[in-house]
Amino acid sequence: MEKTCADEFPLTVDSSEKQGVVCIFGTGDFGKSLGLKMLQCGYSVVFGSRNPQVSSLLPRGAEVLCYSEAASRSDVIVLAVHREHYDFLAELADSLKGRVLIDVSNNQKMNQYPESNAEYLAQLVPGAHVVKAFNTISAWALQSGTLDASRQVFVCGNDSKAKDRVMDIARTLGLTPLDQGSLVAAKEIENYPLQLFPMWRFPFYLSSGLCVFFFVYCAIREVIYPYVTGKTDSTYRLVVSIPNRVFPITALTLLALVYLPGILAAILQLYRGTKYRRFPNWLDHWMLCRKQLGLVALGFAFLHAIYTLVIPIRYYVRWRLRNATITQALTNKDSPFSSSTAWLSDSYLALGILGFFLFLLLGITSLPSVSNMVNWREFRFVQSKLGYLTLVLCTAHTLVYGGKRFLSPSILIWSLPSAYILALIIPCTVLVMKFILIMPCIDKTLTRIRQGWERKSKYAQSTLNGKSDI
Amino acid sequence: MEKTCADEFPLTVDSSEKQGVVCIFGTGDFGKSLGLKMLQCGYSVVFGSRNPQVSSLLPRGAEVLCYSEAASRSDVIVLAVHREHYDFLAELADSLKGRVLIDVSNNQKMNQYPESNAEYLAQLVPGAHVVKAFNTISAWALQSGTLDASRQVFVCGNDSKAKDRVMDIARTLGLTPLDQGSLVAAKEIENYPLQLFPMWRFPFYLSSGLCVFFFVYCAIREVIYPYVTGKTDSTYRLVVSIPNRVFPITALTLLALVYLPGILAAILQLYRGTKYRRFPNWLDHWMLCRKQLGLVALGFAFLHAIYTLVIPIRYYVRWRLRNATITQALTNKDSPFSSSTAWLSDSYLALGILGFFLFLLLGITSLPSVSNMVNWREFRFVQSKLGYLTLVLCTAHTLVYGGKRFLSPSILIWSLPSAYILALIIPCTVLVMKFILIMPCIDKTLTRIRQGWERKSKYAQSTLNGKSDI
Amino acid sequence: MEKTCADEFPLTVDSSEKQGVVCIFGTGDFGKSLGLKMLQCGYSVVFGSRNPQVSSLLPRGAEVLCYSEAASRSDVIVLAVHREHYDFLAELADSLKGRVLIDVSNNQKMNQYPESNAEYLAQLVPGAHVVKAFNTISAWALQSGTLDASRQVFVCGNDSKAKDRVMDIARTLGLTPLDQGSLVAAKEIENYPLQLFPMWRFPFYLSSGLCVFFFVYCAIREVIYPYVTGKTDSTYRLVVSIPNRVFPITALTLLALVYLPGILAAILQLYRGTKYRRFPNWLDHWMLCRKQLGLVALGFAFLHAIYTLVIPIRYYVRWRLRNATITQALTNKDSPFSSSTAWLSDSYLALGILGFFLFLLLGITSLPSVSNMVNWREFRFVQSKLGYLTLVLCTAHTLVYGGKRFLSPSILIWSLPSAYILALIIPCTVLVMKFILIMPCIDKTLTRIRQGWERKSKYAQSTLNGKSDI
Repeated sequence: MEKTCADEFPLTVDSSEKQGVVCIFGTGDFGKSLGLKMLQCGYSVVFGSRNPQVSSLLPRGAEVLCYSEAASRSDVIVLAVHREHYDFLAELADSLKGRVLIDVSNNQKMNQYPESNAEYLAQLVPGAHVVKAFNTISAWALQSGTLDASRQVFVCGNDSKAKDRVMDIARTLGLTPLDQGSLVAAKEIENYPLQLFPMWRFPFYLSSGLCVFFFVYCAIREVIYPYVTGKTDSTYRLVVSIPNRVFPITALTLLALVYLPGILAAILQLYRGTKYRRFPNWLDHWMLCRKQLGLVALGFAFLHAIYTLVIPIRYYVRWRLRNATITQALTNKDSPFSSSTAWLSDSYLALGILGFFLFLLLGITSLPSVSNMVNWREFRFVQSKLGYLTLVLCTAHTLVYGGKRFLSPSILIWSLPSAYILALIIPCTVLVMKFILIMPCIDKTLTRIRQGWERKSKYAQSTLNGKSDI
Repeated sequence: MEKTCADEFPLTVDSSEKQGVVCIFGTGDFGKSLGLKMLQCGYSVVFGSRNPQVSSLLPRGAEVLCYSEAASRSDVIVLAVHREHYDFLAELADSLKGRVLIDVSNNQKMNQYPESNAEYLAQLVPGAHVVKAFNTISAWALQSGTLDASRQVFVCGNDSKAKDRVMDIARTLGLTPLDQGSLVAAKEIENYPLQLFPMWRFPFYLSSGLCVFFFVYCAIREVIYPYVTGKTDSTYRLVVSIPNRVFPITALTLLALVYLPGILAAILQLYRGTKYRRFPNWLDHWMLCRKQLGLVALGFAFLHAIYTLVIPIRYYVRWRLRNATITQALTNKDSPFSSSTAWLSDSYLALGILGFFLFLLLGITSLPSVSNMVNWREFRFVQSKLGYLTLVLCTAHTLVYGGKRFLSPSILIWSLPSAYILALIIPCTVLVMKFILIMPCIDKTLTRIRQGWERKSKYAQSTLNGKSDI
Repeated sequence: MEKTCADEFPLTVDSSEKQGVVCIFGTGDFGKSLGLKMLQCGYSVVFGSRNPQVSSLLPRGAEVLCYSEAASRSDVIVLAVHREHYDFLAELADSLKGRVLIDVSNNQKMNQYPESNAEYLAQLVPGAHVVKAFNTISAWALQSGTLDASRQVFVCGNDSKAKDRVMDIARTLGLTPLDQGSLVAAKEIENYPLQLFPMWRFPFYLSSGLCVFFFVYCAIREVIYPYVTGKTDSTYRLVVSIPNRVFPITALTLLALVYLPGILAAILQLYRGTKYRRFPNWLDHWMLCRKQLGLVALGFAFLHAIYTLVIPIRYYVRWRLRNATITQALTNKDSPFSSSTAWLSDSYLALGILGFFLFLLLGITSLPSVSNMVNWREFRFVQSKLGYLTLVLCTAHTLVYGGKRFLSPSILIWSLPSAYILALIIPCTVLVMKFILIMPCIDKTLTRIRQGWERKSKYAQSTLNGKSDI
């Protein structure tokens, strides 16, 4: 329901319905915007200001008073003041006793202060019920009614009644309150609006690096080499042909890199003989951004698919096909049908299509609303079984693409092998290592370790607990 | 968890588990269906009816009593009666004191009455704890167990214990209760099931209009003109060729219309010198359905993509290609490879593919579960930066398509220019205006206005508050 | 917010912040993993064990005591012991009075015991506040921090304060608690992690069966027949050509099977004259997995689309086209343009594209986050109106594909008709039956039945209640 508010006009709420009084400390942009929104939703708004006289530009219908007077008007006080200026509240401690104090502040950067603003506030005004809320909502969005992204209001606080009141206000403003528990959560809530795709950075830089490297590599082989040796202008290959080599290579490499950390983790556990030791930080980080790596890989695979489907429309391809046909017609040479070439060409395409299809399925399963619907067993099945099947199909697709010409020496240009051969290194390594790990003897040990067994454990305890404990 | 109930059989709940007694006033279709469902889930059900004798067609296992007797049996009473007939409850006021009264009613049309049915009921029976619930569930769905869409039960009420009891009942029936706060929310909950894609109407009509206009326009140029001048039958163009002109034009125009209101809003704010004045209603509405406009545009872009990929399979295209090849083979004319044509053809395709890819990304980001996971900063980044990049790429795609023949006079047919030239008008206008708005001098003023600065404000107050308030 | 924790590093929580003491009974794998995680998140952890001396391999920082001592240290006790060993708790009943007892156990198979483990525990220790939680979280995921799928913690219990405490702990561990109501929900929560795509099995087996049947059927017609009669090797057709016949046939058949149960239900209701009787079990089950059937059909349709788009790239197709062109060039025969063939070829493609587009829309609408945003009316509109339109378009696509050669006898091979003719049987049946059902006279009766009317009902009661009850 909350979500469908997006489809209505929150600005046209009937203001005849009275919702009680809310006090707002601070007449900055966010204070003003929130006040205006509350007025539109039927609240009476009282602003608290240091200099009530000069604060004349507030929304019509709102009163401006000095802090203490304003505080006396309402049980709910929104604190729209920067953390650096919270000191003045110490003097008001008495008049704030028992009031709901909503901290809406954000900081300039993550973890700027040792404790969160809301916890600092709670220390400063011990008598008040501090609730953290509204900091993830933008003033501009409140003003313009375009709350597409940030309809969610994360609420936390130690007093559950105070929290309920704040959540009711959020609902009345057409927002979606989400209870985040006690004030301990404030730090996370304050960090939330400051982040910009933190988990996507590593995949982004990695894939950019791979793209640039393979682009230059292919450009050397397919544009610079023919120019140097034959003065042929093949710069037009830079637009479609070379990207259509770079994209699948990047996609396959990234897909293999999704499964590599799991294999490294297994090896580490086998080596250590226990799972109760933390992985090194780089492996932790890598494992946590596998989903993002996989989605970036899917993006490249998608581009590869369209670039491939578009081939027969390209002028260059049509020109070449026509010339080949004409040449054959004029020379009257016969080109017999080769069943093995048909097999190779068709298998190559079929493997690619099926791999792409499974890859898409993996991508759809990683959509939050879909992955929330599956349990751990189902998720493991999809991401592990289907994931490896995808990797196998895509690697086979590349291998069959190589086909006969795989090891012919003519493909070395300036002693550089074809780019797709480089693309196969990591996937094949991952598949071979996985194949070793699933061999019964190794798999058995690994499974026992993952079920809590430790190589150096006393057998007495192990068997004892194995009987009754989970 | 609630969601996965969809994957089970709510009809086969073991009814041996007793869940307490629920009373249902009213033996209409919804009352019967809800009662049957409750019986299946282990509740004892007592129907309250005006004429208990004639109400013989109720689910087996349920009792039928007169209202006051039925009410005395249970603390929870479901009121499955139309609002117009609520009066009889006034007499029962005493026996309803302290009971949970669930209002499940819907109205015929939106905002039919000044207050919501639930609030009206609360006035009528002040002693009862009125809770609004179950009105978004269809009787047919309850009956057939096919609750795919409407598993969500929006619940609101002033008494939180009463609300908790109703939410527990909803959970036991295999539904997903969602707390919507106090009874104030009842109006919205009652309007909810009556709407039919309210925000999609304007985009739908607009895109239909554009489609029809461009279809007729292209039909005149490509079917009627050749028929009139050369008696050529090109009606087959109506099926694929002309739609494949109409779809991209509509998509590009709609995409540009997504970004136009933001530019108009910026101009209005610059002109007014403040952001604290509401936009005209049409601009408000336009801004609120940008997402829908964009998704319709994406639909047309998708169709354009498939229609284009299908080109080489078409009989007409194959026939033409074969004839061209044969003619060239027979006349033995040489067609040298033109590097510039290859560049143009490939750039055109690459720009289109990349634009479509970014467009798809925008579409995926607008999925509710994805957009709920990004914060305001990330959403702005995606929708604004990536959005404009998409518009630039798609406009460039169209410009390169025009290529050399852009201003050659031969393309005027009956003094009508090619359709794609019309398609470029709005996107180019939007891009030029955006380019002006991001020039440093203008952008600086706009940013200040959006941060709360007002052109006519007293400087004293502005600087004063700027220091401490958010 | 909870969801975005996935993008952070739950393992690097600052453990300086103290969160109180939690006691864990049982030192098995899950107990250890949960304890380690709690230690990392700032809790003090005390393990309770039968033999505190031998339990030496616990996470550093945790104490190990005997059960009664451990219980005395904390108000919150996690019971990480198998259900079969719950008996020892009876002796501790006194020291557990008033404590929060968290049941994290899972069973080996669904519905293994008559009552859920948590309810059994509540009977065993009546003085404690039993809360079911954490059973859907895997120990391995807790350990490795890769909580992609199972961040959701379903919580249920009869004491709301106890539940709140558990939900706070879950939040502190970076998980997403979801309140599932009272302890009655425990059974469902315990079954949840045991299921493996229960609703997908029937669609999976059905579609596999259809695929295999049609694959063999087509292989007989297109590979074995030519080999037997002409010794021609067309095995290469097994890779792309035959799958591209099998996939659309399976997709169309499955799509029709999505709409068949609705028609059977309508016929059954017309025959019975009431909707208040349950459908036979097989029909119930069929209706409940329609969504999954439709999504599998969409998968096949998607594969068909890509297999079709890939046609012009295939070696076989290119070879055939070139040979045809050369033959024509050499024999100098004219092939005039056939407007009707162009119409047929283009209509066939256009119908397929539009059908596939609508099918995709249906698929997107069935994403949980999208279907949660539409109400019952909108969902019905999309799934019923758009669904049938999709079926009509896809059936027409297949009919036009047949085109002129539909009834020519030459297509019978070994008296087997073309596979697409078999594909049309169910869709055409469904469409004809639907057409009959929407004829005014029948539709009127059906609508009345679905609104609660019964053929054998007393008119008095029916009209009486029709006036006032919902």
